[in-house]
Amino acid sequence: MTQVDAANPLKVGIVGGTGYTGVELLRLLVRHPLVRLETITSRSEQGLKVSDLYPTLRGYTDLKFEEPDVAALAACDVVFFATPHNVAMRLVPELLAAGTRVVDLSADFRLRDAGVWSQWYGEPHACPELLDQAVYGLPEVNRERIRGARLVACAGCYPTSIQLGYLPLLERGWVRPEQLIASAASGASGAGRGAKVPMLLAEASESFKAYGAGGHRHLPEIEQGLGDIAGGPVSVTFVPHLVPMVRGIHASLYATVNGDTPALDQVQAAFEARYADEPFVDVMPQGSHPETRFVKGSNHCRLAIHRPGGGDVLVVLSVIDNLVKGASGQAIQCMNLMFGLEETAGIDLPALLP
Amino acid sequence: MTQVDAANPLKVGIVGGTGYTGVELLRLLVRHPLVRLETITSRSEQGLKVSDLYPTLRGYTDLKFEEPDVAALAACDVVFFATPHNVAMRLVPELLAAGTRVVDLSADFRLRDAGVWSQWYGEPHACPELLDQAVYGLPEVNRERIRGARLVACAGCYPTSIQLGYLPLLERGWVRPEQLIASAASGASGAGRGAKVPMLLAEASESFKAYGAGGHRHLPEIEQGLGDIAGGPVSVTFVPHLVPMVRGIHASLYATVNGDTPALDQVQAAFEARYADEPFVDVMPQGSHPETRFVKGSNHCRLAIHRPGGGDVLVVLSVIDNLVKGASGQAIQCMNLMFGLEETAGIDLPALLP
Amino acid sequence: MTQVDAANPLKVGIVGGTGYTGVELLRLLVRHPLVRLETITSRSEQGLKVSDLYPTLRGYTDLKFEEPDVAALAACDVVFFATPHNVAMRLVPELLAAGTRVVDLSADFRLRDAGVWSQWYGEPHACPELLDQAVYGLPEVNRERIRGARLVACAGCYPTSIQLGYLPLLERGWVRPEQLIASAASGASGAGRGAKVPMLLAEASESFKAYGAGGHRHLPEIEQGLGDIAGGPVSVTFVPHLVPMVRGIHASLYATVNGDTPALDQVQAAFEARYADEPFVDVMPQGSHPETRFVKGSNHCRLAIHRPGGGDVLVVLSVIDNLVKGASGQAIQCMNLMFGLEETAGIDLPALLP
Amino acid sequence: MTQVDAANPLKVGIVGGTGYTGVELLRLLVRHPLVRLETITSRSEQGLKVSDLYPTLRGYTDLKFEEPDVAALAACDVVFFATPHNVAMRLVPELLAAGTRVVDLSADFRLRDAGVWSQWYGEPHACPELLDQAVYGLPEVNRERIRGARLVACAGCYPTSIQLGYLPLLERGWVRPEQLIASAASGASGAGRGAKVPMLLAEASESFKAYGAGGHRHLPEIEQGLGDIAGGPVSVTFVPHLVPMVRGIHASLYATVNGDTPALDQVQAAFEARYADEPFVDVMPQGSHPETRFVKGSNHCRLAIHRPGGGDVLVVLSVIDNLVKGASGQAIQCMNLMFGLEETAGIDLPALLP
Repeated sequence: MTQVDAANPLKVGIVGGTGYTGVELLRLLVRHPLVRLETITSRSEQGLKVSDLYPTLRGYTDLKFEEPDVAALAACDVVFFATPHNVAMRLVPELLAAGTRVVDLSADFRLRDAGVWSQWYGEPHACPELLDQAVYGLPEVNRERIRGARLVACAGCYPTSIQLGYLPLLERGWVRPEQLIASAASGASGAGRGAKVPMLLAEASESFKAYGAGGHRHLPEIEQGLGDIAGGPVSVTFVPHLVPMVRGIHASLYATVNGDTPALDQVQAAFEARYADEPFVDVMPQGSHPETRFVKGSNHCRLAIHRPGGGDVLVVLSVIDNLVKGASGQAIQCMNLMFGLEETAGIDLPALLP
Repeated sequence: MTQVDAANPLKVGIVGGTGYTGVELLRLLVRHPLVRLETITSRSEQGLKVSDLYPTLRGYTDLKFEEPDVAALAACDVVFFATPHNVAMRLVPELLAAGTRVVDLSADFRLRDAGVWSQWYGEPHACPELLDQAVYGLPEVNRERIRGARLVACAGCYPTSIQLGYLPLLERGWVRPEQLIASAASGASGAGRGAKVPMLLAEASESFKAYGAGGHRHLPEIEQGLGDIAGGPVSVTFVPHLVPMVRGIHASLYATVNGDTPALDQVQAAFEARYADEPFVDVMPQGSHPETRFVKGSNHCRLAIHRPGGGDVLVVLSVIDNLVKGASGQAIQCMNLMFGLEETAGIDLPALLP
Repeated sequence: MTQVDAANPLKVGIVGGTGYTGVELLRLLVRHPLVRLETITSRSEQGLKVSDLYPTLRGYTDLKFEEPDVAALAACDVVFFATPHNVAMRLVPELLAAGTRVVDLSADFRLRDAGVWSQWYGEPHACPELLDQAVYGLPEVNRERIRGARLVACAGCYPTSIQLGYLPLLERGWVRPEQLIASAASGASGAGRGAKVPMLLAEASESFKAYGAGGHRHLPEIEQGLGDIAGGPVSVTFVPHLVPMVRGIHASLYATVNGDTPALDQVQAAFEARYADEPFVDVMPQGSHPETRFVKGSNHCRLAIHRPGGGDVLVVLSVIDNLVKGASGQAIQCMNLMFGLEETAGIDLPALLP
Repeated sequence: MTQVDAANPLKVGIVGGTGYTGVELLRLLVRHPLVRLETITSRSEQGLKVSDLYPTLRGYTDLKFEEPDVAALAACDVVFFATPHNVAMRLVPELLAAGTRVVDLSADFRLRDAGVWSQWYGEPHACPELLDQAVYGLPEVNRERIRGARLVACAGCYPTSIQLGYLPLLERGWVRPEQLIASAASGASGAGRGAKVPMLLAEASESFKAYGAGGHRHLPEIEQGLGDIAGGPVSVTFVPHLVPMVRGIHASLYATVNGDTPALDQVQAAFEARYADEPFVDVMPQGSHPETRFVKGSNHCRLAIHRPGGGDVLVVLSVIDNLVKGASGQAIQCMNLMFGLEETAGIDLPALLP
């Protein structure tokens, strides 16, 4: 394709722009120097101005939500799917055929095995033939493959925080892969913008709870990703929790050392070395406790490593903003890679604190 | 002693009434049918009306905070210490000598080993000779000993939620005691009423973090208590977290099964049997996810058990209100036992929801 | 009727027990010494155990939600309606005919003028003939009439906080009745338990907004009530706001002095005198700023009076818990009066703080 | 001065960078295309890396807090004071003498009358001789004067929201200036980062209260500013409230119409006309209720106008982010004007939602 620059920006479409990952894409893309938003679709809000639904965008875009239209989308260089599962996989084949590249924020193309997908999502996969060419969108693992990808399946929010936390340990073979325990917690925006009683402020604030303790859809993605990193099967006990806050994921990752595990100083050094060139992964000093507010609105993942009492368990603490590095920021990072832009373009913003 | 009844109520004193456990004792005791508050002390707020500091008590008490005075306290039947550590152990000997019984909500008498206490609290223990006669105030474990106790060391907040969760598993020998992982989370009232920057609303709300991941003072109490239950040494990886809410503790307890562990149904049944007669422990149905708001303001602990994917890890979810079952409610429960009152007197209140 | 005592408790029914005022009635009534819950109805949750919907009530009631049944309700001494508007007015006539007394927490019988009701609620009133005998349930204004009432229309949440705040000023004629400005704010539980996007935690927390600034259904009730107190027409500018918290109403009430208004000390004294015998109205000292947390879970209204800069405007600050004094606690207070019980029975609880 | 461009950025210093307005300046300035941060001072945190105190800035600045040093500050083109009152007025004269321009975010130079300043701040003003040349930093009122200013006294947070809301009404003479009532509410960051018990999460969350109802330091600034706009004296009843959230100010502004006031449509049109060219003031459609989250992290003020029931009172609703348009964003907007930069440079960011 031709060179992308301010005069020839990428033409971008968004499918499903009414949810939180949609508005977060919008927040970032309206200020991205090399992007022009062409179209944004929503069946439910068709005809409504985007800025009427999201007044934060008043003055930043005049787009209206449109009925999804393949021709309009196919005229874009890249289309983001900010939809629930089971939407992208019905439209992607046509877009790819038209030469449009796709970044899917949903779960449709994250699992390589269509059977596993069916088992967790309760219906057959609509285009298993594309699973092979879908590239898993976690740049810290897959950067080169993302550059060449036509279809990127963005890593999920919990899976991103968990994989980045365990990655250096599993790459080095320093922990027992069959005994991983990931106790993670998310803010309420992770549940989406649907009207559900348990997510009401009067229900979910001033409380803390686990959910999905018996099994959660992110588990197969986590185990697939960590297995790729470890080069062999891993077993994860994954328990997500709901925090009474809007944004943020915090993963407390427990792993049992093995005979090869060095002292904590070397573990710390290995983390620092592994992520030294990563623009969005920050290994904090030993003894740190990253807080989710340290990444609110930013595309960063911040990590810290502990070894309580010098015992057999390593604890990695990992935080991201579920809507940025856990979704829309990561999607833009992938887009930047796919089109040869500066990897940090449009997403190089410090977090909002306080 | 003479019979306690409405006409002859227990005379009660409180040392250190300005903190959150102090005001929670007051909330419950002003409505306890068999108690008369005699004195409440505070060095810092001496002379101030209790209800000026805590307007919630306007109309419920006319007491003023007084300079701590041993004689006045010794005239009580029972004295509660709602103080930081290192206060009770300086006053308790005199009170016991005067025949006054003591319920200590602080950490001073929880650990049997004065050396361990010193190690975690950084100074010598002031009266190690009383450690032997202090009874650990967790009625579900120690009810009979509490009845006869002259000095009760109330179980801490995290330790209560964690011990009640692991108890049936360790009593039965169904999990590996050297591989316990307790990922727990507390509301901000657990940090007390001291003015500290990290606990400001503008710092601590809209965020989630771990703290003390390298080692926390509640760990030796947890390991001592669980060791007593298991009848042998246990090893716990304990990581506390701060939740942006006022009240509540949630413990996510991970344990590895061993060869003796039965199916989940039987584990569930064992929990239900163990706690069938406990007025304040509620084993919820399989598949439940107890929320901290289910116990807000109440003395209950609610539990649920999971075995994710039928794998090797059991997950027990345990919630309490840190200021009630984790402190003041438990202290009153102990007092009720010590004086032969109905165990639930004054604390038999449903939680406040929403 | 026969004497009510612990052996012969009041038989109580609740229509519409699944909402927040329903569960709050339950929290209070399960501990009310002179009440036995007979039946609780819900069309949507019929057959479900109350404690399955509200685990806070596990151990406190075994009732199930039942299909509304007039015969079962008519067997009660008193029935509470904790329903949206337009439900009570369809069932009340039959219940009254059967000799059952009714406390309606909804808006159906609050306005004396059926035409005004229709105008604000958008449909004809179903039994205007009962409006005359409905007694407005605000004990501080209407205590004697409530005692004799067969049908009580409980005062609404905003109207309660606003009327109690303006009452002494209007009774004395000390402010201009045509220039009242009530800027009030409510926690999210005031919007009920319905699943609505704007009430999601991710939408409503970390934000503050006005709503209904052009006109709110509580306005005619407020103006009717204040008009009765003032003995003539009043005009109120009422703007409600949504606070990111669960419970509580705070009213900031502005009134312009007139030639008769005395100095602030006398105004304060007049408030104190007016409410001296009221068990649930607390006039705080001059200079106070009542906080909604001072009444969380309690049936109290706390008030403070200011005269900024000694100018022409009096400011009354008034706080209640919208679910207690603003709904269920007030309903029980009315019931106590109707049946000659101690007015404070079952609702004499200090607020939960922190 | 020489042209400012990316190669010759403005040299900027910050005095007092540890507070919330300081870190907000940093968040915005590290991404400002035409600024280079030279120095940041803090007595209390001298020697600490800025990013150790504020990990959100890890990767964005290597600056350390330094002991305040006039020479280092005087080498800057512009110095921001993000300090409490009574700091700037001691350093500003020297900086101005050295040719450095100053943007003061504190209250030191906002009031033209040193006597009024003394009355509200309880001490003499340290350099009353500069009050004349200080330009009040509210660009919507004072743009031209700011361009030429050497010393700008940024408008305060409440005063900004209130002045922008009343401005078109007072300029047109459409309301009675002696009967203004401003009922406003702020998030907790407005109280600063000092450790104070009432601002603890456990105290301030889940509650709402007024404060300073008898008189607040922002009142003279509000009345001075509105008086300038009205061209004559105004009288405001100003009651601030604390909202349990981090950021945001919401002002509910009440004004009584007079004989000249046109219909609401024309009032709306007048607001839209007045602010048509303002980059940061957004008049929302009639019937809107701006929410503070619509401006979280952004420099916008959003307004809506109501006339409840068509009565005598106009209600203007006004929201800003207290740390951006109410402080640091406005300060940068002023700096941009002072140095002839694009007025929106570095602060043209949409709000963070959800």
